[in-house]
Amino acid sequence: MSILAVGTVAFDSIDTPFGSAERVLGGSASYLTLAARPFCEDVRLVGVVGHDFPDEYRQVLAEGGVDLEGLEVDEDEKTFFWHGEYHYDMNERDTLDTQLNALASFEPEIPDSYRDSTIVCLGNLEPGIQREVLAQADDPDFVIADTMNYWIENTPDSLRTTLSAVDCLVINDAEARELADEPNLVRAASLIREMGPEILIIKKGEHGALLFTDGSVFSAPAYPLEDLQDPTGAGDAFAGGVAGHLHRTGSIDEEALRRAVIYGSVMASYVVQRYGPDRLLDIDPQAIAERSSAFRELADIPQLVPFDTHPA
Amino acid sequence: MSILAVGTVAFDSIDTPFGSAERVLGGSASYLTLAARPFCEDVRLVGVVGHDFPDEYRQVLAEGGVDLEGLEVDEDEKTFFWHGEYHYDMNERDTLDTQLNALASFEPEIPDSYRDSTIVCLGNLEPGIQREVLAQADDPDFVIADTMNYWIENTPDSLRTTLSAVDCLVINDAEARELADEPNLVRAASLIREMGPEILIIKKGEHGALLFTDGSVFSAPAYPLEDLQDPTGAGDAFAGGVAGHLHRTGSIDEEALRRAVIYGSVMASYVVQRYGPDRLLDIDPQAIAERSSAFRELADIPQLVPFDTHPA
Repeated sequence: MSILAVGTVAFDSIDTPFGSAERVLGGSASYLTLAARPFCEDVRLVGVVGHDFPDEYRQVLAEGGVDLEGLEVDEDEKTFFWHGEYHYDMNERDTLDTQLNALASFEPEIPDSYRDSTIVCLGNLEPGIQREVLAQADDPDFVIADTMNYWIENTPDSLRTTLSAVDCLVINDAEARELADEPNLVRAASLIREMGPEILIIKKGEHGALLFTDGSVFSAPAYPLEDLQDPTGAGDAFAGGVAGHLHRTGSIDEEALRRAVIYGSVMASYVVQRYGPDRLLDIDPQAIAERSSAFRELADIPQLVPFDTHPA
Repeated sequence: MSILAVGTVAFDSIDTPFGSAERVLGGSASYLTLAARPFCEDVRLVGVVGHDFPDEYRQVLAEGGVDLEGLEVDEDEKTFFWHGEYHYDMNERDTLDTQLNALASFEPEIPDSYRDSTIVCLGNLEPGIQREVLAQADDPDFVIADTMNYWIENTPDSLRTTLSAVDCLVINDAEARELADEPNLVRAASLIREMGPEILIIKKGEHGALLFTDGSVFSAPAYPLEDLQDPTGAGDAFAGGVAGHLHRTGSIDEEALRRAVIYGSVMASYVVQRYGPDRLLDIDPQAIAERSSAFRELADIPQLVPFDTHPA
């Protein structure tokens, strides 16, 4: 029983109106694996870094308990670099710089020891690379994928091929509208689920997340935080928590999925309280239990009073 | 036991990327009263229209059961007119035209029969006018107010004076950030509650609403609709539903407030399915009961499994 996550391992430089951080550890695979780890003993990372990736960052992932056998080092290249700037209300950001570096020529080869992975998380990458990784896994029980507007616009056919092999897609609301070419989220969700993923989770940042399954919609809140510092990686930590809970519970029924969305939201809520993924290393079961209970309190609608008065 | 609502009664012209409507009945007082009416037999409107206000629209309000004794007709002026255009995803809009007309010289005088109103709803208007209306009510149990960026920017001192006399403020997230001059919504909520309103409800359109009370936050979802047609008036219908339920239940404890937010969301969800407020006339108790139950289902987080496994 194990989780494999493929994605970027990166240097992130982050500017917000309230502070900034330079070249912190980032990347979808870093956040995915560290967020899944509290739920699962065996979390495996597939990715690539360059010659400039410091031991210190490798140590963060290793101390987080992530299996790094699948983290390739490309000695001829530098590590993927992303520089983003958040707006005043932190729900929007601009990408100032992206340097693919080692990622440009990445041809993932997963270690033999990874082939039996139970859950495979395809972090946001070129859809063809996502498929290459999936093809090397023997027979995963469950496949979760992310993508982004770049692939929706530039490799639509390849993305469709990947989606047809995915059980659960986790994207944000703007991406869902673009992927379905449909502004209404409910209709967009139906169209996307027809592309392959039976389960669709739409992330909405500080507005929470929506879970679409057969005949049911679940709306999860986001945790209201006074000390939101850096939203980077929240979406990947969310997916890591989702994968982690589904792994732990061994079920994908409606209740399990709703709980998974809450645990994903819990992991995301911790990540945004600091720059980089370090906060994920400190989270103990107690912290996860407390915050997930706080989510239930936050969203609790009391039993409704029968509505029997209608004035004439 | 009665609800008084003051606000605009207007012609609205609405453009969306998917359709448009010209000079439909609109205005905050129209939506507030019609949405409160299913919860309360005695709903009173204070507002002004011009000589061009058609009997047909007066009939809509009258058929909705709204007391129109406080609807002044200014024979020298035309009716307030608003023209707005919604963006592709319908969460944002631009105002193309605003003609104050009769509203420019409006000096509300409430009928004697309105003085004993139990709940007073101050729809979005110049804060001084909101206070004039409030001063004419004898001793309402509860005061709900709305405002907008224009008053936050142009009449900040007057707005502060009004806020100090308000029990519950209902505004959107951008307005909350601007009013508090604080980008973080949780901190903004604390700052706003210090200005007077013990209860703050932040509307977030298709992302639902947040209720801030002493030591508690409630996050309510929005109802996912396939047939969203026109968001105009949703915020006022929301406030009308909130006022209506609080009136019906006669309580403002945490449970009553949470239910009120759900009933407000129910009324808003019906309004956006059509241009204008007509849908509010068709809503029977059954429809309200069904959709409010659907909100509970939508937001239901199953009991969480004890989190007792933390891999070493």
